[in-house]
Amino acid sequence: MTLDAGAPARTVGTVRVVGTGLLGTSAALALVLRGVDVVLVDPSPTAVALARDLGGGRFPADGDDPAVVLVAAPPDVVADVVAVELAAHPRAVVTDVASVKGGPLTALRAAGADLTRYVGSHPMAGRERSGAVAARTDLFAGRPWVLAPTATTTALALQVVRDLALDCGGNPVVMGAQEHDEAVALVSHVPQVAASLVAARLREASEPAVALAGQGVRDVTRIAASDPVLWAQILAGNAAPVADVLEDLRDDLDGVITALRALARDPQARGARGRLAELIAAGGTGRDRIPGKHGSAPATYATVVVVVPDRPGALARLLADVGAAGVNLEDLRLEHSEGQAVALASIDVVPAAAGPLAASLRGAGWTVPL
Amino acid sequence: MTLDAGAPARTVGTVRVVGTGLLGTSAALALVLRGVDVVLVDPSPTAVALARDLGGGRFPADGDDPAVVLVAAPPDVVADVVAVELAAHPRAVVTDVASVKGGPLTALRAAGADLTRYVGSHPMAGRERSGAVAARTDLFAGRPWVLAPTATTTALALQVVRDLALDCGGNPVVMGAQEHDEAVALVSHVPQVAASLVAARLREASEPAVALAGQGVRDVTRIAASDPVLWAQILAGNAAPVADVLEDLRDDLDGVITALRALARDPQARGARGRLAELIAAGGTGRDRIPGKHGSAPATYATVVVVVPDRPGALARLLADVGAAGVNLEDLRLEHSEGQAVALASIDVVPAAAGPLAASLRGAGWTVPL
Repeated sequence: MTLDAGAPARTVGTVRVVGTGLLGTSAALALVLRGVDVVLVDPSPTAVALARDLGGGRFPADGDDPAVVLVAAPPDVVADVVAVELAAHPRAVVTDVASVKGGPLTALRAAGADLTRYVGSHPMAGRERSGAVAARTDLFAGRPWVLAPTATTTALALQVVRDLALDCGGNPVVMGAQEHDEAVALVSHVPQVAASLVAARLREASEPAVALAGQGVRDVTRIAASDPVLWAQILAGNAAPVADVLEDLRDDLDGVITALRALARDPQARGARGRLAELIAAGGTGRDRIPGKHGSAPATYATVVVVVPDRPGALARLLADVGAAGVNLEDLRLEHSEGQAVALASIDVVPAAAGPLAASLRGAGWTVPL
Repeated sequence: MTLDAGAPARTVGTVRVVGTGLLGTSAALALVLRGVDVVLVDPSPTAVALARDLGGGRFPADGDDPAVVLVAAPPDVVADVVAVELAAHPRAVVTDVASVKGGPLTALRAAGADLTRYVGSHPMAGRERSGAVAARTDLFAGRPWVLAPTATTTALALQVVRDLALDCGGNPVVMGAQEHDEAVALVSHVPQVAASLVAARLREASEPAVALAGQGVRDVTRIAASDPVLWAQILAGNAAPVADVLEDLRDDLDGVITALRALARDPQARGARGRLAELIAAGGTGRDRIPGKHGSAPATYATVVVVVPDRPGALARLLADVGAAGVNLEDLRLEHSEGQAVALASIDVVPAAAGPLAASLRGAGWTVPL
């Protein structure tokens, strides 16, 4: 989505952004685009000056009376900063964007903070790069933005933060802090750990071995390239829910190893193949739970595979021909292989469109294998 | 790569394809395209008739004297079939395409087969679908095709199978059976198990939880949709090497769980965050081992992100504009998000091209976030 800069902001009054890293600066840019008055604060004078120079708002001034405070501080310090902001701005609604919600809430309760004006939040957005320099006006565009009100958050405070999320282009989703933390353990933190575990095994692989790597291991390990320090903080902040899921995963893994060892001793070991097939089948069932694009129910698309030469403009010509066939492309994957200057483009379309599309592309001179 | 149908075949004489599933039929189609005489055999009359009707060759006839036998039987029976073919065709070179090489070799040795004429092989190609109906002339195009000669395989026999692999469009790579099995455990079998383990955890996730799924968990679990029965066979056939890697992975996993439990008790637990950061960093190091596209050394590309409306032809117009900018696209990823009818296209290009490409696309009216 491109943010519609012409639409009026829902947010009324000044927004104080505390922490001008990737998330804080991206929110500031989106809000300024809608005409919101944004005040920028950060412990680092360099970081806050950069955010201002990028167009994220202004420095604080005497008499500022923010309606909303958006705390975008590292997970380790977020509760402290929220508590300070709640106390310093007794009429403001305060939210934070940390990727875990239970720990900060517990700390705020212990500190006796005014939780009627607090809404934890978590926009499901990020990039491989960090800092204001990586900020994007539309970082949150179309992304789920979780709102986790406390038991005492007022309806008005929730509405204020919902409006802020919408003004940033996000898609607000309300859930409890505990529910949120268990959800991100499953769909974000455990996949990160698994990707890193698999990738770590490749460290001592031989050159010929890694040369056999195909699209499967590339996909499984793509996110293993993430920032170690940031991820140590994220995992530490959600330690118990992540450990719960990982222990269940380890039980399954132990079952796989036991079955494999039995098969290594006796290829006909009773029940061992069945246990392996069960695990793969269970994975297929779980995979089917992930919604299709744009949050719709999982859909089954048909795939048309086309051979694409590795030349400038070749993929563009292919997709122009797809467009000319009047077919909407649901997804596109490129597969590369070792030693050949070509790629295979896998084009997902609704099943009824696959046959006509393949025929149309063949007519346009493309190699569309059987 | 499109197979160059005009180039003469390296393979001389008749090729007997035993097993007309996905791999056997795809090899047959590629060989016929080059003018090779291909004889098709399968226990299922329906399967072999389908392969013939697709253009994969002919039925056997009296007096057939194959120069090469390609055994494309399920892993469970491959050694038996190879032994039968070696005995039945005493002048032929015999190869198989099973995804594990150590087990069949051991069985053939035990059976006293003539290993001077045998070369195990493994083309690194496959599809989600199976059977002759899913066969593709260029299934092997540009893919590594591992050749695993025995200690007594003659140089001539190895050359014959290398020529067969080249005629099918594959990229021959010679390695030992044990080395092969350890390599595919690392780059194929363990990633499959890990993807299935993570995906299996999603089975009991709440609807709101799976609605938060982003590109990371989608990538990690994509191959979890694989065929359980086939994968149980593959894993069983490579049981010991896969178990070896999974046990090392489990040791790392135990370390992560221990660190997380320590942090759940005490967020300042000594050394725990360091251990988490080490695992993520180790994953990054391993991930860096995977070669870049086309088998070149890993390359670092710059990424240009563009907002693409979900309309027919939009992506085609974008890529036409990329082509018009004279930039070669190294990779392309589409990211979808919940609840919005747009996608983000991440275009990887050589770093020097990123700035000019972004400027050119903005000039063409595209939204290219900061």
